[in-house]
Amino acid sequence: MSVQGSLAGIRVVEIGTSVAVPFGCQILGDFGAEVIKVERLGTGDEARMWAPLTEGVSVTFLSLNRNKKSVVLNYKADEGKQALEELLQTADVLVQNLRPGALAAAGFSWENLRETNPRLIYVEMTGYGHAGPRREQPAYDAMLQAYSGVVAMTGSDEGEPARVPLSMMDMGTGLWLSLGVFDALRRREQTGEGAHVQVSLLQTALAWVGTPLMGVAAGGPVPQRLGSGFRGNVPNGAFPASDGYVFLSVGSNDAFYRLLDAIEAPHLRDDPAFENNVARVSNRQYVNAQLGAATAKFTMQELLERLDAAQVPHSAVNTLDRVLEDEQVKALGQLQPIPHATLGDVTIVNSPLTIDGEYLAHQNGPPLLGADTVDVLASVGIDEGRIDRLLADGVIETHTEGARA
Amino acid sequence: MSVQGSLAGIRVVEIGTSVAVPFGCQILGDFGAEVIKVERLGTGDEARMWAPLTEGVSVTFLSLNRNKKSVVLNYKADEGKQALEELLQTADVLVQNLRPGALAAAGFSWENLRETNPRLIYVEMTGYGHAGPRREQPAYDAMLQAYSGVVAMTGSDEGEPARVPLSMMDMGTGLWLSLGVFDALRRREQTGEGAHVQVSLLQTALAWVGTPLMGVAAGGPVPQRLGSGFRGNVPNGAFPASDGYVFLSVGSNDAFYRLLDAIEAPHLRDDPAFENNVARVSNRQYVNAQLGAATAKFTMQELLERLDAAQVPHSAVNTLDRVLEDEQVKALGQLQPIPHATLGDVTIVNSPLTIDGEYLAHQNGPPLLGADTVDVLASVGIDEGRIDRLLADGVIETHTEGARA
Repeated sequence: MSVQGSLAGIRVVEIGTSVAVPFGCQILGDFGAEVIKVERLGTGDEARMWAPLTEGVSVTFLSLNRNKKSVVLNYKADEGKQALEELLQTADVLVQNLRPGALAAAGFSWENLRETNPRLIYVEMTGYGHAGPRREQPAYDAMLQAYSGVVAMTGSDEGEPARVPLSMMDMGTGLWLSLGVFDALRRREQTGEGAHVQVSLLQTALAWVGTPLMGVAAGGPVPQRLGSGFRGNVPNGAFPASDGYVFLSVGSNDAFYRLLDAIEAPHLRDDPAFENNVARVSNRQYVNAQLGAATAKFTMQELLERLDAAQVPHSAVNTLDRVLEDEQVKALGQLQPIPHATLGDVTIVNSPLTIDGEYLAHQNGPPLLGADTVDVLASVGIDEGRIDRLLADGVIETHTEGARA
Repeated sequence: MSVQGSLAGIRVVEIGTSVAVPFGCQILGDFGAEVIKVERLGTGDEARMWAPLTEGVSVTFLSLNRNKKSVVLNYKADEGKQALEELLQTADVLVQNLRPGALAAAGFSWENLRETNPRLIYVEMTGYGHAGPRREQPAYDAMLQAYSGVVAMTGSDEGEPARVPLSMMDMGTGLWLSLGVFDALRRREQTGEGAHVQVSLLQTALAWVGTPLMGVAAGGPVPQRLGSGFRGNVPNGAFPASDGYVFLSVGSNDAFYRLLDAIEAPHLRDDPAFENNVARVSNRQYVNAQLGAATAKFTMQELLERLDAAQVPHSAVNTLDRVLEDEQVKALGQLQPIPHATLGDVTIVNSPLTIDGEYLAHQNGPPLLGADTVDVLASVGIDEGRIDRLLADGVIETHTEGARA
């Protein structure tokens, strides 16, 4: 069972590649919008070529492009420009993340488009934002993690800075742009007018670091790297098992004593470095090393059972293969099959919310490059003869067997 | 200048603490909703007590609770329960993250509330989700980072796993719940009926790891820790300077040769380990160490200038004090002052989008505990005599000088 999102009947045109805009538009598609992805000739979205591939298809592309249609069109050719203009006349939303200024240079600026479609919501995503000396520079997720302070804070206190190995700036920007679309649609119902919504990786990044940044702005210390730990609480973090790691968190001395018994290290209770949280924080490295020597004598499974019995808050430090097999993950039903034209069913992760107990409905699996070129252009009133000419002139492409998926 | 969000006129009641629900409701407030935060007697939201404090006020609380009103009310007392019922009669949205089942046990289940207010949108946030063996267990951000595979993937390949030092599960859940509210409001306009929206840290976490999880589900390798690096590309990551780190990324051999010249290490060109990306990936640690020895001879500023001149994509690995002083960050205007009753203006990070070039408008700064108790209850029709009795009976509290902010 599934539930239909509220964006059914809303047409979104995506002119975007990579992660942020595809993820944001996938969210809109999950909520029911018709999302038409306009891709370039030959290769399409860059992410279609990113490793790892499964049977020749990019997993990254698969994970970011369900519930979309694919139209391949060269809008720099005159006839293609005309066709895109006609498509955009029928659109409620345009979302784009081309190089700053590139789409405007091709004739599709917000100012131009609003003249003919004043109800259009024009969403523009950049790396560094709409103003400032870097506004025209390209950027990508990891670079903005570095720029915004995330890399400097992440990783072991004794080692090098680390990256968050997820596209948190890209995906976060996708979330914010989808919120911007919902807001603009609601405003349009009130005013009849579209809007120019701008988002960027840097602005998203500043929102992510908002709390610690406000702490520094208020005169507090600059956060340092602490591995898996927390500034004011020890022990709290990942501790080694013989076959992996376990995360545990101790908020009181009572819980701490229960932990020491559970890991058969009651003697540590007499060490003054362990006396209370203040002492443990002061002796962080020593305390964590002593506890780690004790936890490493057990397997993950043994530790999890012992911490459970001792009522010490904990979690396995799961690797992704364990996540896939986890009973709780399975029970939630968020990992779902979706059909793909060449792969059969692929497993996707649905948007993480339920409505009256049901996940959002799927429209279709990730499209092959150009799978919907003809159908979409026909639906906006471009007749068969013109479509044939566009095909013959190489201005549009449809999917052909053996071509890149 | 600023722009009014589209949720003006929507009343949200927040019964939540800590990060996820407060952040989600702050987003709704940024978009113009009236957000009434119902807090418990004496202490209010737990985050009001979290370190670090600035002049006795929690920075975390300040960062998550602008554009809200604070009402202090004990809904477990009969008169308080009655008052909350009257408040919820006037609400469009209720968002809560109490222990699973706790609010229902107090009489405020979705099933009860929809009987008297069928237009109510009831949003419930938990740690592990609405189903499965862990559905009643408490959880928090770092624990779900561990559970979902993020901790195992983060940190140096030679060291211990690390945490993402930001509340990405909490804040992500806040983003998803605010999307759920926009969707439910739109559906309500279509159907006249409210909805039961459920979100959780675990479901949010699965969406964050969606791409690599799909890779593993498709039979690919389980991602390993790579510090600041990337699996298929070397060099790409943080490299040491004499006074910090610089992030750089090299996508071609041409760019690699420019890098070697820029860091005065052209001799590395002749080392077979550096021959091309495939060789560099195979010799990751050696290559990174050799390059790091060269970059460490320069200051951050020198490296940034040299990489700029050589057109090698790069970024400073900024610490948060540098972020605050950064010209691009200042130019974006996203860090803004907001008034606070005891602190004067505090600097907040506005929601990361602009609409027709303007950020969302502020309604008010983070409220003192109980600052709006009387005004809000009066606004739903509770008369002065009854408010006085509620105060006298200790069922509600207003802010008093010297009390916790």
